[in-house]
Amino acid sequence: MVSHLFIEGVLLDGQRTNVIVTDNIITGIGSELPMPVGSTYIDGSQYAAFPSFANMHTHAPMTLLRGLGDDTPLDEWLNKWIWPTEKRLNPDSIYWGTRLACLEMIKSGTTAFNDMYFFLPEMAKAVSDSGIRAQLGLNLFGDGDELDLFNPEPYPNVTYSIAPHAIYTVTKRGLTRAAEYCSHHGLAYHIHMAETLKEVSDCQSQHGCRPYELLDRIGVLDTMGEKLIGAHSLHLSEHEIELIGRHGCTVVHNPNSNLKLGSGYRFLFSELAAAGANVTIGTDGCASSNNLDMLEAAKTAALLQKGWRQSPTASPARDIMQAATENGFRALGLKAGRIAEGWLADMILVDLDNVAFVPCHNALSNLVYAAHSDAIDTVICNGKIVMRNRQVANEAEIVANARKYAKDLVE
Amino acid sequence: MVSHLFIEGVLLDGQRTNVIVTDNIITGIGSELPMPVGSTYIDGSQYAAFPSFANMHTHAPMTLLRGLGDDTPLDEWLNKWIWPTEKRLNPDSIYWGTRLACLEMIKSGTTAFNDMYFFLPEMAKAVSDSGIRAQLGLNLFGDGDELDLFNPEPYPNVTYSIAPHAIYTVTKRGLTRAAEYCSHHGLAYHIHMAETLKEVSDCQSQHGCRPYELLDRIGVLDTMGEKLIGAHSLHLSEHEIELIGRHGCTVVHNPNSNLKLGSGYRFLFSELAAAGANVTIGTDGCASSNNLDMLEAAKTAALLQKGWRQSPTASPARDIMQAATENGFRALGLKAGRIAEGWLADMILVDLDNVAFVPCHNALSNLVYAAHSDAIDTVICNGKIVMRNRQVANEAEIVANARKYAKDLVE
Repeated sequence: MVSHLFIEGVLLDGQRTNVIVTDNIITGIGSELPMPVGSTYIDGSQYAAFPSFANMHTHAPMTLLRGLGDDTPLDEWLNKWIWPTEKRLNPDSIYWGTRLACLEMIKSGTTAFNDMYFFLPEMAKAVSDSGIRAQLGLNLFGDGDELDLFNPEPYPNVTYSIAPHAIYTVTKRGLTRAAEYCSHHGLAYHIHMAETLKEVSDCQSQHGCRPYELLDRIGVLDTMGEKLIGAHSLHLSEHEIELIGRHGCTVVHNPNSNLKLGSGYRFLFSELAAAGANVTIGTDGCASSNNLDMLEAAKTAALLQKGWRQSPTASPARDIMQAATENGFRALGLKAGRIAEGWLADMILVDLDNVAFVPCHNALSNLVYAAHSDAIDTVICNGKIVMRNRQVANEAEIVANARKYAKDLVE
Repeated sequence: MVSHLFIEGVLLDGQRTNVIVTDNIITGIGSELPMPVGSTYIDGSQYAAFPSFANMHTHAPMTLLRGLGDDTPLDEWLNKWIWPTEKRLNPDSIYWGTRLACLEMIKSGTTAFNDMYFFLPEMAKAVSDSGIRAQLGLNLFGDGDELDLFNPEPYPNVTYSIAPHAIYTVTKRGLTRAAEYCSHHGLAYHIHMAETLKEVSDCQSQHGCRPYELLDRIGVLDTMGEKLIGAHSLHLSEHEIELIGRHGCTVVHNPNSNLKLGSGYRFLFSELAAAGANVTIGTDGCASSNNLDMLEAAKTAALLQKGWRQSPTASPARDIMQAATENGFRALGLKAGRIAEGWLADMILVDLDNVAFVPCHNALSNLVYAAHSDAIDTVICNGKIVMRNRQVANEAEIVANARKYAKDLVE
């Protein structure tokens, strides 16, 4: 049985139009289009429509650690706050932490995220129960022996990747083995890359080359190509940018995390894009930065580019939105991130009565530069409404359980 | 007739307590305090209390220009977008633009702002009608002949300052005349200072010294001392920092504006504070950055310090909150910005059920690093509730009029 969603008179790219969604696909856009019989109806007159966000680097269950050890030095943060707490995580807390993360992402307009953590079965169930999409990465350390036991369960809207933690925590054998596994099973390869200056200098001392040069030298770039997703990719040489671009890799800019942890701010957005990289945006986990809000991450990304380049024309709103939406979905293998016929119906409706949209000389500018996530009224994922009038199913239950399991972690 | 407000069991600095406000003053804090007879009652169990914000650099009516000419070069932005539009402003649009600004500030927890613009009588009426506080600066250019006609009307919660636009738009005669006027009338002196590298190099070419050195040389720093408010103060030499600190001046960091306009990012927060400056935070007008949200500005300020210094311990949340609250109020001559007995009752109640406060290991961290303004449920200014359950009086009327007058500006 086919289902239809009909959004009447919504603001899209500066024009009022109707949008028809059939099952999970956008099948019609036009101001004269009539409503299909039996449609779910949304009066769009109060809204502007935009693609929903793809959050391309997260550690969802760490939402339970939000705010632990802020403003402390890295060693204290890891040894006193993060590692002891992570050890207490169990399947139940992982499930509810992931539900909390999904709730927060839905409330800020994200319908897909690219994660890297542990306890993937519980995470997959939580994602599936939340109604959004995720690519869940199996975290590897050392020689990557975790691969031997990997036997992921199928869940709706959930795919898997292999996620070697980083070049300094995974051996060369682990890094290449993961690439071969990915190649054999058609999976993406999600890895922290060039996040800190220390990582780069340690790599140079140990291997005589920079992080992406190491991946190139051991064959990972050739094996993975477009299926490699390098989170952070902050401290890069010209040669590394050329390597990333030539292999068509995806890079994930996490501006708030990079700032908050003191990693840096000179992300080479336009240089990477010009070289052929697929530039995307992420929030990182809530222990690093403190929320999962892609709208905030997009704004910070746009402002930072203008700031450090001392140029108000750097990274305009349209480029940033494309990175935060379509580019992310593409890396996940999803034809989403545009409101256009034939594309997956992943979109948000923002409330034009929200004060950030008053006046509305330019709705895209208002979204990126003025609004917060509370302007997002409705979220549609894969054709299904997962938030309406800012109401998400089971919010009180998720909050109550998240609080309970978060308390267990620190007591 | 004395009035009381009683907030029961609110989270304050990690403890549950009762707060009593008598007229406009906080008169009691303690978990055992009983409710005074006839109090207005707020059940605080769902809330954490924090001081409200003081937004220390704004151009409130420019909220009507939000989003015009984003992402364009400075010349185009000024000549094509800002200046032609500003010429169309009239007393009515100024009034409704200021009402819109006040609405937005109330909804993001600000109860006082320090402005610089034109049409002060209409602005003063709008502020007074909105129920928050402002110090409105008379904008001066050239020789400051605007002073001859300045005869401000008294309005509740409104004070005035003199606001020479900048050292490159006001003559030395205008700059010193303004200082003498301020000194004679006991007013503050609000001026854009050291915002761009061009301003600094032009000053060096024209006057053979840097911007704050010029103010020192012509006697403005000695005359004004603590009553000088230098907006931006971004590109400073060590000598200028010493001058600012020795005179006890206030500086206003506008992080989002500085980034968005490409002015820079290396605000010398700790150096200025250590030298004795009163460091505060502002948003700038909505034509520069695009909202008036102090919570966002505070977060950006905190993250930027950590980012460019590559240190996660730089500018902890507590320091940033003090700059965004108490330090600003102090510069406005108001004993507010702390929730303590004997202080003015300017405060916010944030909703602990907001997802950014789940879990709540540290409410201050959640406020600064995770939350957006939609977590702010209640705003109290001078003992009066100006927002409750996110409802502000006359919002629909303000939005409708702001839209109408904004449209007139661009058609």
